Amino acid sequence: MDNKNIYKSAIKVNEGIPKPAGINPDVLSESGRKRKKKYSAEEYVTGILSGDRMILSQAITLVESSLPEHYEIAQVIIEKCLPNSSKSVRIGITGVPGAGKSTFIEAIGLHISGQGRKLAVLTIDPSSENTKGSILGDKTRMEQLSVHPNAFIRPSPAAGTLGGVARKTRETIILCEAAGFDTILVETVGVGQSETEVNSMVDFFLLLMLAGSGDELQGIKRGIIEMADLIAITKADGLNKMVAEKAKVSFQNALHLFPSKPSGWKPPVHTCSALTNTGIAELWEIIMKYTEFTGKSGYFEEFRKQQAVLRMHNTIEEYLNNSFYNNNRVKSLIPELEKQLYDGTITSYKAAIKLLDNYFNR
Amino acid sequence: MDNKNIYKSAIKVNEGIPKPAGINPDVLSESGRKRKKKYSAEEYVTGILSGDRMILSQAITLVESSLPEHYEIAQVIIEKCLPNSSKSVRIGITGVPGAGKSTFIEAIGLHISGQGRKLAVLTIDPSSENTKGSILGDKTRMEQLSVHPNAFIRPSPAAGTLGGVARKTRETIILCEAAGFDTILVETVGVGQSETEVNSMVDFFLLLMLAGSGDELQGIKRGIIEMADLIAITKADGLNKMVAEKAKVSFQNALHLFPSKPSGWKPPVHTCSALTNTGIAELWEIIMKYTEFTGKSGYFEEFRKQQAVLRMHNTIEEYLNNSFYNNNRVKSLIPELEKQLYDGTITSYKAAIKLLDNYFNR
Repeated sequence: MDNKNIYKSAIKVNEGIPKPAGINPDVLSESGRKRKKKYSAEEYVTGILSGDRMILSQAITLVESSLPEHYEIAQVIIEKCLPNSSKSVRIGITGVPGAGKSTFIEAIGLHISGQGRKLAVLTIDPSSENTKGSILGDKTRMEQLSVHPNAFIRPSPAAGTLGGVARKTRETIILCEAAGFDTILVETVGVGQSETEVNSMVDFFLLLMLAGSGDELQGIKRGIIEMADLIAITKADGLNKMVAEKAKVSFQNALHLFPSKPSGWKPPVHTCSALTNTGIAELWEIIMKYTEFTGKSGYFEEFRKQQAVLRMHNTIEEYLNNSFYNNNRVKSLIPELEKQLYDGTITSYKAAIKLLDNYFNR
Repeated sequence: MDNKNIYKSAIKVNEGIPKPAGINPDVLSESGRKRKKKYSAEEYVTGILSGDRMILSQAITLVESSLPEHYEIAQVIIEKCLPNSSKSVRIGITGVPGAGKSTFIEAIGLHISGQGRKLAVLTIDPSSENTKGSILGDKTRMEQLSVHPNAFIRPSPAAGTLGGVARKTRETIILCEAAGFDTILVETVGVGQSETEVNSMVDFFLLLMLAGSGDELQGIKRGIIEMADLIAITKADGLNKMVAEKAKVSFQNALHLFPSKPSGWKPPVHTCSALTNTGIAELWEIIMKYTEFTGKSGYFEEFRKQQAVLRMHNTIEEYLNNSFYNNNRVKSLIPELEKQLYDGTITSYKAAIKLLDNYFNR
């Protein structure tokens, strides 16, 4: 189901509530006139805490908006939601191209929702601004899950600003948790810096892999395997089953050769099939075991606290870099300095100092 | 051989040349009065280009010094040396604790020097300021190599400033290459950020591993295995030989499961023993194959250019961060904000903005 369809179905179940501007923030920001009613921050918070999905959706749209007035009210809402936001498990999911991420999420999502848990699925789509959502355009995407009463699917378009996606996803998580969702799946598309960013806001990182020749490995960034708390080899069905089991053993052996994670958790390797619904329940059990293991050791809470501090520092770093590289004097000097570095006629250090002198106007 | 001994032996072979302040920059910076003679930048450059090791040593000391006047002259020397600095192969070496790094470097160093190549070995020792070099204090360290006419060993104490080590090592490489050294080994101690930094200044990254229970893996940082261009399993001798060969197969299988390197090079796994001098020559052949492989593809040169640009950006980032976190208003606010983040009473984004507002005084 694509953005538009989710939006439509959301409208359908909430007909009594005023029509929002749409879940695409561009629509909201460029044609604010479409909004029939403006809620106060207080009304948003009350709506979210009562689990009203329409209000939640609109609040997320404010979080995603680039308009300053939306930012202001969004920050007030988030702050009021913050105390209610942490009783959940947050799971990041990425995978090699072809691993069948959507199908997998639908399968595990139905399992999770079927257990009575309230599930929010957030997708980060860095290319959505260019493609207008075409990556998510498969109409059959998560069809069953999207109509499950316990599930809430929210595809978020990538923001224009660097790293903005991470902040907005993080704030969307807060709102979803305040609305009563106790399980958050954050999907990434497997490109850019998104995995590292997502890893800084989830409790558990799940990597979907395929058994194969190794070519599919080119689709993932180096370092992601070591980031995983669980590797799931998907499409372990039919003729593919034996190959998948073999790949499982290979990955298990390989993971033994790597230093253990700070959590003390030893990432297992697991096969599953969304098609035959095999291994999905077991996979969820592993995630539950992780929360139990890290809950007992205190790592679960400690890691969340560390993440919050880390995100503050990352935000600062990003801001400082943006401020520097958007400086006009810096921008005009960089091409010539990079050329000199390529030619080996200047040291990196001297080039850096020249730019810094210009930035600080000294 | 420790700092002091290398210094002494250097003095011995250069008795006609005025005694320098010593290779410890602290000695130089704190008691400049010890220096008997000051060379001009021009004299330093002439000395370096003629391969005078005494002058080279003194120039490196200037690079390592924290005194502004030393920095000024060092920059002039480096700039003049830069055009003569790139005809070499630069190899980064790290390893798990107990892998026998010094013994290995002595063995391969003797092999390299024996082939008529001119070898400079640079060590980065982040703890040297606290321990006054005790980590390097083994008197028998690289005893044979240190007296080989083709070899030059330079242990560099860690600088006080963050990242300063990386800049100084990079600049020391330039000086060594200008002095005619065509093979540079840069050793890291396997802690902190040093591997990533060293990787940004070498052509080839060699990781020394031990066959074992896996406990030794705790000594290396995550991500380093994926950084390696070659994994050498050391101490493959006597009763350990079979275990090492088995570990080699395990690592080979594991590496197949990882995305390939941007160079297109598939990192091999190799066993060796410095004790029996087995596999050392073959290991060097692998490194030569790498330079040939990446030389033909153009990656070797391209990577060096990318590294130069990357180092400029890293230097800028580091400077901006230092400037921010050394700001007094920022410093005084951080403890309270980190507490609020730990308590979950503020968002990371809001905390970041508060600090940024204070830093930019707005």
